[in-house]
Amino acid sequence: MNDPLLRLRAEFPSLEDGCHLISHSLGAMPRGARTGLEQYADEWSGRSVRAWEEGWWELPRTVGDELALLLGAAPGTVVLQPNATLAGAVFLSALDFDAPRDGLVTTSLDFPSLLYMYRGLADRGARLVEVPSEDGLTIDTGRLLDAIDERTRVVTISHVLFRSAFVMDVAAVAERAREVGAMVVLDLYQSAGTLPLDLAGLGVDAAFGGCLKWLCGGPGNAYLYVRPDRIPELRPRLTGWQAHADPFAFDGESFRPTAGIERFLTGTPPVSALRAARAGIANVAAAGLAAIREKSTRQTTRILDRCDAEGWDVRSPREAARRGGSFVLAPPDFQNVAARLIERGILIDQRPEAGIRIGPHFYNTDAEVDRALDAIAEIVAERSV
Amino acid sequence: MNDPLLRLRAEFPSLEDGCHLISHSLGAMPRGARTGLEQYADEWSGRSVRAWEEGWWELPRTVGDELALLLGAAPGTVVLQPNATLAGAVFLSALDFDAPRDGLVTTSLDFPSLLYMYRGLADRGARLVEVPSEDGLTIDTGRLLDAIDERTRVVTISHVLFRSAFVMDVAAVAERAREVGAMVVLDLYQSAGTLPLDLAGLGVDAAFGGCLKWLCGGPGNAYLYVRPDRIPELRPRLTGWQAHADPFAFDGESFRPTAGIERFLTGTPPVSALRAARAGIANVAAAGLAAIREKSTRQTTRILDRCDAEGWDVRSPREAARRGGSFVLAPPDFQNVAARLIERGILIDQRPEAGIRIGPHFYNTDAEVDRALDAIAEIVAERSV
Repeated sequence: MNDPLLRLRAEFPSLEDGCHLISHSLGAMPRGARTGLEQYADEWSGRSVRAWEEGWWELPRTVGDELALLLGAAPGTVVLQPNATLAGAVFLSALDFDAPRDGLVTTSLDFPSLLYMYRGLADRGARLVEVPSEDGLTIDTGRLLDAIDERTRVVTISHVLFRSAFVMDVAAVAERAREVGAMVVLDLYQSAGTLPLDLAGLGVDAAFGGCLKWLCGGPGNAYLYVRPDRIPELRPRLTGWQAHADPFAFDGESFRPTAGIERFLTGTPPVSALRAARAGIANVAAAGLAAIREKSTRQTTRILDRCDAEGWDVRSPREAARRGGSFVLAPPDFQNVAARLIERGILIDQRPEAGIRIGPHFYNTDAEVDRALDAIAEIVAERSV
Repeated sequence: MNDPLLRLRAEFPSLEDGCHLISHSLGAMPRGARTGLEQYADEWSGRSVRAWEEGWWELPRTVGDELALLLGAAPGTVVLQPNATLAGAVFLSALDFDAPRDGLVTTSLDFPSLLYMYRGLADRGARLVEVPSEDGLTIDTGRLLDAIDERTRVVTISHVLFRSAFVMDVAAVAERAREVGAMVVLDLYQSAGTLPLDLAGLGVDAAFGGCLKWLCGGPGNAYLYVRPDRIPELRPRLTGWQAHADPFAFDGESFRPTAGIERFLTGTPPVSALRAARAGIANVAAAGLAAIREKSTRQTTRILDRCDAEGWDVRSPREAARRGGSFVLAPPDFQNVAARLIERGILIDQRPEAGIRIGPHFYNTDAEVDRALDAIAEIVAERSV
């Protein structure tokens, strides 16, 4: 069939060497990432310290503005951060968790790294409310809404659950939070780059994620979005000189944060990672999120149909609209099947108590998806002999 | 004269294109840093997600062990961190600041990024004691010692002050802190890579810094050292999945920190920056810190002698043993002189209310130092006509 997104496949030369279906974990490297790293080395060696004023210092904001377009956010509302856990920690450090409004509501299926950090906040006075999952794959929206009340300071949840690709009902959460005066923070790690997003329209207070996966930026490129009207209201306690209005005054006496989104930065940024991030963002933008989503839905539906035909357990939502970019399936003995697939050079992964995760992206062919599914069928057949 | 360290100069090819005397701000790029970045790109594209188990995940510890040798620290006591402000924040997040032992003692000449972060802690209950400077260049040791008492939880100070290269009397501080039961944390940014260090011998509880400057690692490579016996006692609240004993179990229910130094890590590390850092560490190790210090002292004394001959104000300690790797001098109208030097391709910098900072490193020739000094003399002479 005609698949216009495959025009971008040539930008990801390593795809020809294997079967890369793991963009939910690590996006493929675009050609331009290597160029970005070379640019960084050229700047460091050729411009030395002058590189800071020629672009390095502003890079967390520059890349943030490029990324904002993919998040449905305005320029000046996104900055890059070293990793998503720290991005979340910086935002939450601006909030007061004083009783009675001391609640931080999250779910047991949020990414563990975040849950560990939230527990650190609980140890400093936040009242942690962790909404459990009934099936280990989804969160009941009603149960989550019931946990949000007048004592909730902030609801911080994944947009798409990493374990099952279940899409949370963010609109309902945002509405409930507004009713009771709580903030909403979204973890976009499993949605940005594969789902069209409209952060401005959703009205959430903040969001964070990383470019590592669907945005093809490699590690070291997380990000934080803050709603424009919240920016001047909030003052992170986890801060540093990149947040200062005049950092090169080296003013030790008083801390004057910038008026802008940079007030959510900390210390010196990892420039090499930021230089590598831009190509992935540009490629996703060139593909277009609507087209990416349409193709993703088609390919994950292809996986669903095969699961039904083979009788494999489905661990992602059957309804396409409730499903993110990856698809989780559990053929018999899935952990061993996953190991065998990787031995064959088919890059997927598995998550305990969930299943094999397959994450086709805009650069993958249907033939690659079929290759993985055929291999699973073969391995399952061999094992059941 | 015979200068055996110049054998390593060929490893820093960009030195031939200018006059790089700014290693106190950004170390020159070693040839191997570019190779490290290429290795990262090859791993990302060629190994994809398998790179995590083939070295990426462990990299903060691997590079930490390489760095430990230069800090006089044992293997397993150092991990890389995204930036020094966050490194300090992670360590301090493990401490309780409960009255009466609620004091965090620092100095007004510590690096502003850290001071901003300490004020964030003060806003959460720490009692911040900022020992002032009488001359804007040094801290009186007696005054600092007087500020440390039974109510002090932690003393966190620079080893070498960034503004003047003044070496703090760490041994006296450590002794006083021990007497009153306070911890000591050192900011090594301006000492590691240019001063021989013996963290184990000093007995400080923790230390942080970055590879950006004297360690020639570029941005994104800060580090944290924790004294071995403190590691199991402390549990950072600012944490993430890299601190977990079994991160790939994705255990959202319970957080079990590693027994080792990795418990001071947070989220996913900036791999490109870590791959770039190793060459600088290797070059500094190849030069040897004793030889680096000897040459540094000789070259900064050369600057001091010229200042005296020209009648320029000296803003660094005259006594070599109290002076770090950079030298701060204030010829008339130094801010404009600094701007003119940079126009001529002589890379130095200036700090407000201090002077021009010149930072020769093991790869610099005496001729380069003289070129900068001659240029200053010329510019000063022109301006005074």
